[in-house]
Amino acid sequence: MIALPDTVLTVRACVPEDRARLSHILLNSDVFGQHDADTVDEMFVQAMAKPGPDQYRFTVACGEDGEAVGFACYGWESMTQGTWDLFWVCALASARGRGVGRALLADAVATASAEGGRLMVIYTSSTPAYDGARRLYRSQGFEKTAVIGDYYAEGDDLNIFARRLRA
Amino acid sequence: MIALPDTVLTVRACVPEDRARLSHILLNSDVFGQHDADTVDEMFVQAMAKPGPDQYRFTVACGEDGEAVGFACYGWESMTQGTWDLFWVCALASARGRGVGRALLADAVATASAEGGRLMVIYTSSTPAYDGARRLYRSQGFEKTAVIGDYYAEGDDLNIFARRLRA
Repeated sequence: MIALPDTVLTVRACVPEDRARLSHILLNSDVFGQHDADTVDEMFVQAMAKPGPDQYRFTVACGEDGEAVGFACYGWESMTQGTWDLFWVCALASARGRGVGRALLADAVATASAEGGRLMVIYTSSTPAYDGARRLYRSQGFEKTAVIGDYYAEGDDLNIFARRLRA
Repeated sequence: MIALPDTVLTVRACVPEDRARLSHILLNSDVFGQHDADTVDEMFVQAMAKPGPDQYRFTVACGEDGEAVGFACYGWESMTQGTWDLFWVCALASARGRGVGRALLADAVATASAEGGRLMVIYTSSTPAYDGARRLYRSQGFEKTAVIGDYYAEGDDLNIFARRLRA
């Protein structure tokens, strides 16, 4: 794989018109499948229908041509005081190596911090398909905090990453 | 507190008419508050509107007079192969010591096992208010598997309990 030079990426909040593009990104990420796309689509519809402080936040990272090449979904966990979950961060396989995940994650951390967040938590799989994701989380200051063995399936653990946020 | 003798409890799936009773139980549990009641109410409305295999399951434990004295909410985590979450188990404070939690939890474990569940997971708080809940989980074969420090608030950790299910 040839590493592309970093290009300027812009992260913005989603609008309803991004819906189809999110599914496209997921299904062309080499990581996620149709079931994930259905799950994200349901969350997206809910978020667009009823925005609010405890609703899912969707953001996209766009290249210089304005086209979205990755998205994130995160939000305040309303049963907590200041804990935010990062639910999804996903980039087009064709956009790998351009810092898409980094830009989305840094933006999510900044938003959560600005809104008084104390802690951000990420739930992910222990399988090799998520090696890149785990490297990304570590590069952004997240540490593996807890493990639930065989959570997703036999041999596929839940890894919980967390990092402190600063106001 | 005087321990009441165990009485016959019946656990059954909820019907839409149980909605108000669930809020009543939560608000008279000495554990949960209005925000929790709102959260459960939203989950209940969703579950009744669109029942399905990956929907929340609500059950109530009823005394001999047929009145519900506790409820549980659990379900299959659709991103997993056979992992179930217990979201809520709650009894009226006035019904404490009658085995309400035990009956609800045993029923949830039996249902999940019958539907091919491999693992059941419970997320709970580390604070003294949940001492009874954690004792209940341990008595039903759940073990504390993971901790996320300061998850709910500073000094209030997330404790994750898990147990294997058998078909």
